[in-house]
Amino acid sequence: MENRTMLTDLYQLTMMQGYLVNGYHNKEAVFDVYFRSLPFNGGYALAAGLEQVVDYIENLGFEEDDLEYLRSLNIFSEEFIKELKNFRFTGNIDAIPEGTAVFPYEPLIRVKGRIFETQLLETTILNLVNFETLIATKASRVVSAAGGGSVMEFGLRRAQGPDAGILGARAAYIGGCQSTSNVLAGKRYGIPVAGTQAHSWIQCFPSELDAFRAYAHTFPDMCLLLVDTYNVLKSGVPNAIKVGLELEAEGHQFLGIRLDSGDLTYLSKEARRMLDEAGLKKAIIVASNDLDEETIFAIRAQGAAINSWGVGTNLITSKDNPSLGGVYKLAAEGDQGVFHPRLKVSENIAKITNPGIKKVVRFYDRAGKTMADLIALEDEVFEEGKALTIFDPIQTWKRKTLTNFRTRELLVPIFREGKRVYDLPKLKGIQLYAHKELETFWDEVKRLTNPHNYIVDLSANLFELKQQLLLTINNDIKSKQGVE
Amino acid sequence: MENRTMLTDLYQLTMMQGYLVNGYHNKEAVFDVYFRSLPFNGGYALAAGLEQVVDYIENLGFEEDDLEYLRSLNIFSEEFIKELKNFRFTGNIDAIPEGTAVFPYEPLIRVKGRIFETQLLETTILNLVNFETLIATKASRVVSAAGGGSVMEFGLRRAQGPDAGILGARAAYIGGCQSTSNVLAGKRYGIPVAGTQAHSWIQCFPSELDAFRAYAHTFPDMCLLLVDTYNVLKSGVPNAIKVGLELEAEGHQFLGIRLDSGDLTYLSKEARRMLDEAGLKKAIIVASNDLDEETIFAIRAQGAAINSWGVGTNLITSKDNPSLGGVYKLAAEGDQGVFHPRLKVSENIAKITNPGIKKVVRFYDRAGKTMADLIALEDEVFEEGKALTIFDPIQTWKRKTLTNFRTRELLVPIFREGKRVYDLPKLKGIQLYAHKELETFWDEVKRLTNPHNYIVDLSANLFELKQQLLLTINNDIKSKQGVE
Repeated sequence: MENRTMLTDLYQLTMMQGYLVNGYHNKEAVFDVYFRSLPFNGGYALAAGLEQVVDYIENLGFEEDDLEYLRSLNIFSEEFIKELKNFRFTGNIDAIPEGTAVFPYEPLIRVKGRIFETQLLETTILNLVNFETLIATKASRVVSAAGGGSVMEFGLRRAQGPDAGILGARAAYIGGCQSTSNVLAGKRYGIPVAGTQAHSWIQCFPSELDAFRAYAHTFPDMCLLLVDTYNVLKSGVPNAIKVGLELEAEGHQFLGIRLDSGDLTYLSKEARRMLDEAGLKKAIIVASNDLDEETIFAIRAQGAAINSWGVGTNLITSKDNPSLGGVYKLAAEGDQGVFHPRLKVSENIAKITNPGIKKVVRFYDRAGKTMADLIALEDEVFEEGKALTIFDPIQTWKRKTLTNFRTRELLVPIFREGKRVYDLPKLKGIQLYAHKELETFWDEVKRLTNPHNYIVDLSANLFELKQQLLLTINNDIKSKQGVE
Repeated sequence: MENRTMLTDLYQLTMMQGYLVNGYHNKEAVFDVYFRSLPFNGGYALAAGLEQVVDYIENLGFEEDDLEYLRSLNIFSEEFIKELKNFRFTGNIDAIPEGTAVFPYEPLIRVKGRIFETQLLETTILNLVNFETLIATKASRVVSAAGGGSVMEFGLRRAQGPDAGILGARAAYIGGCQSTSNVLAGKRYGIPVAGTQAHSWIQCFPSELDAFRAYAHTFPDMCLLLVDTYNVLKSGVPNAIKVGLELEAEGHQFLGIRLDSGDLTYLSKEARRMLDEAGLKKAIIVASNDLDEETIFAIRAQGAAINSWGVGTNLITSKDNPSLGGVYKLAAEGDQGVFHPRLKVSENIAKITNPGIKKVVRFYDRAGKTMADLIALEDEVFEEGKALTIFDPIQTWKRKTLTNFRTRELLVPIFREGKRVYDLPKLKGIQLYAHKELETFWDEVKRLTNPHNYIVDLSANLFELKQQLLLTINNDIKSKQGVE
C-alpha cells in the first residue's frame, strides 16, 4: 500500500523538532482517538478504518525526497532530519475492531509510545478513521431503512476525490451495502461490483427497444434495464417486458428494471403490476435518484414495490453530516514505563478529556443483549457474578444496577513494540460481524430518528480519578499557567 | 502520477462491451461536463481539477492484474479484454482553464472521440472536477469573507480521506488560501505549508510559560503561540507577551498568537490591546475553531482584530454543500467526422441537455468588466464591432443588447488525437489568474448572500437548434420508444 508518512499536519513535525530540541522526545505518551457526539443524531456509530491505519503504520517511513522537501522549508535542523530518516513506530496500539458499534468518548484507538512517534500519527489516523467510521455509520442507517431490500453504493462520481470513492465504498460495505459501482474498490477489497447501463446507452441506439435488445444480447443473464429515458410506463416498462419475455423464451432469467427518476413509489407499484401480469414475477425493481435513509424509509412506508436501492451522493459524501469530529487527545504521560494520567480542562464540559490508560467494557444480559458500556481504567476488573452499580458521569444521580451480566472488552491489541500482533479480518467478515454486532442492540437504540440513548458511563474509579485531577488542576492552575 | 483507469463505474465497462458486441464502439461521441446549479446559493464557481484530469488521461491503461480482475467477474469476453489491453485515449479534449469563473450549463470539459473511449472517462473526470471545483469555490468565498486577512487551510484530519485532504488543499489554494497545514500537499504542489503547535504541546511541559519558551527556543523566527490552553487573557496572552519580548530582545521578530476557542471577537480585541500596549504591534493574531465564510464575515463585522484565519472542517468538506452535481452528457454523435447534435429530454426542464458541439463565449465591456456569457455552437462568430441581442433561454422576453464588447472563448484545446497540446500552468499562476479573473466580475455577482445572477444565455443558433430537436423528438417519441 501507499506510503502516507507525509500526509500529516506541519505542526506535528514542528512539535516533534521541538520535543527533540528540548529533550522531550523519548517521553512516553498515550493518546486516545474518540469522537464527542454521534453523527446524524443517530443512536450508534460503526467503527471503520482500522485496516487503513494498520497499513499506514506498517508503511511508515520518510523517503529521501520527503527529507529533501522538508530541508527546503528551512525550518528543520539536520539533527531532526536524521531522526526522521530512521523514523519508525515502535510503540503499542490497541483498537476496537472494525464493524463494532461505538459511542461518544469511547477510545476507538489507543496509541502508546515515544511522544516523538505518537505525535506524528495524529492527523493521518484521524483522517482515515473519521471518514470511514462516518460512511460505515451512514450506510448502516441506509441499509436499515431499506429493510430487507439490498443497497448498492453508486457514489463515485460525486465522492470527495478518488480515495473518498474507494474508502467510502469499503466503509459502505462494512455498513451493510451489498455492492458498489466502483470497479477499483471491487478489485482492491473484493466488494461485489454492480452496474448496468446509463441513459447515454439508450440514446445511442435508434430506439429504446433496440437499446434494450442490444443490452440483453450482450448480458443475457444480468439484464437490468433502465426504463426512464423516454416514458417509464408507456415505453420503458412495456419494452423491458418485451425483452424480458424474449430472454426467458431463450432460457435466461430476466433480471429486472431500474427506475432513476419520477415518483418512485407510484412508478414501482405500476411497474410491478405490469411485470407480474406479463408473468415476470421474478424480475426485480431497482430504484435510484438522490436517495438517503429518509427518502427510502418514506418510499417504503408508502408501499413502493422496490427490491433494491442504488444510493449515490448522499451516502458517499454523508451529505447531511459530512464529517465526524474525531479527536486525538493525550490521556497519559510516562517515563520509563511509569504513566501519569493527564487531563485537558475546558470551559466546555464536553471538551474535558478522560484521563488515564483506559479500556471499554461492554455489558451483555444473559440473552446476549447489550446493557451498557463502561469506560474504565485498564486494570479494572468487573466480576461477572457480582452486581455492579453504574452512574451517568454528568447526572451522577442517574444510577443503574447491572446483575447477571457478561462482559466483553472492546479494545484489542493491534501493535506491540511496533510489530503487528493482529490478523486483519476479511472485509466480508467485518460486514457479517457488524451485522451480528448490531443485533445485540435493542431496536430502540438503532431507530433512525430520536433513538434511545445507549448508556456509556465512566467506571467509579475513572470518575474518581477525573474529579481528583480536575480539583488539582483548578488549584494548580496558576502554576500551570506559569504566570510569574 | 497514479494510474486511475480502474477508478470507474462498472456500467461504463458493461456499456463498452455492449458497444463492442453491437458494433457501435467506433461511433464517435461528444460529451459535455457541466453542473446545473451553483453551490452555496452563490454567484459563481471556480473551475478546478483539470490538471488531475490531464494526469488521469495521460496515465490511462489497464494493467495485467486489472484485466485478471475483470476476467474473474465472468461477465466480460476475451475479445473485450483484448480491446482493454490496448486501450488508450485517442480523441480530443477542450476545457476551461482552472481558476476561471464558471456558471451552470457551461461545458467545463468537452470530450470528443470514439464512444468506446469517451464512455470510460465519465466517472473519473466527474469525481475529480466535481470535488476540486467545489472546494475552490468554497475557498474563494471564505477568502472573500476574510477581506484582506489571509486564510490557511487546516482540514486534513476531517477531510473525506487522504485524496480529499490533498486535492482539497490544492483547490483551496486556487480559491485564494495562502497556505495549508498538509505537508504532502505542500510537497506535491508547492503550496506554502503552515503550522505551529497543538494543545498537547502546551500540556507536555510543566507550565504554559515553559512550553512557550521551549517553542520560541526551537523556532525563534516563526514563533506563533497557542494561547487558549488554560486562560487566554489571564495566562496565554501575558505569557506570550513575555516570550515575545524576550525574543525581540534577542533580535528576533515575534510572530504572534493563535486563538482556538472562546469568543474570537472579544478575545482578539483584548489580545490586540495587550500586545500593542506591550509594544508588540507587529505580532499577528490568528484565529481558528469551526470557521466558515459566514462566521468570518460576522466576526469581522463586529470589529475583531484578527489577521489570519485557520479554516478546517467546513472548508475541506464543504460542509453546507458537500457535493457539486456535475454531469457528463452526450451532446453529439458522429460517424467518420460528421456529427449530429443530440439532446436528452426530461420532464424536468433543468435536466434537458443542450445539443451540439458547443463553446462558451464571455463578453467584456471596454473597461474589462464581464457583461454576460453565451453558450454557442462551435462555429459561431460574434463580431466585436457589431451589436448583439441576447436573451434568456427560458424567459425569452428578457433581452439585452450588447454593444462595444470584447469577447473571449473560454474553452481551450487540451488534447488533440490523444496528445496533450496544453501546457499545465503552475499552481501559483492558477491562483493569481483566479484572482484576476474574479476582478473582472461586478461585486454584486460575488456577494456571499443573494448575489446578482450573472447572465448566461444560449446563442440564437443554439436556442433554435434546441427548439427544433425538442419538437422533432416530441413528434418522434413513439418511434424512439420503439413501441411496436
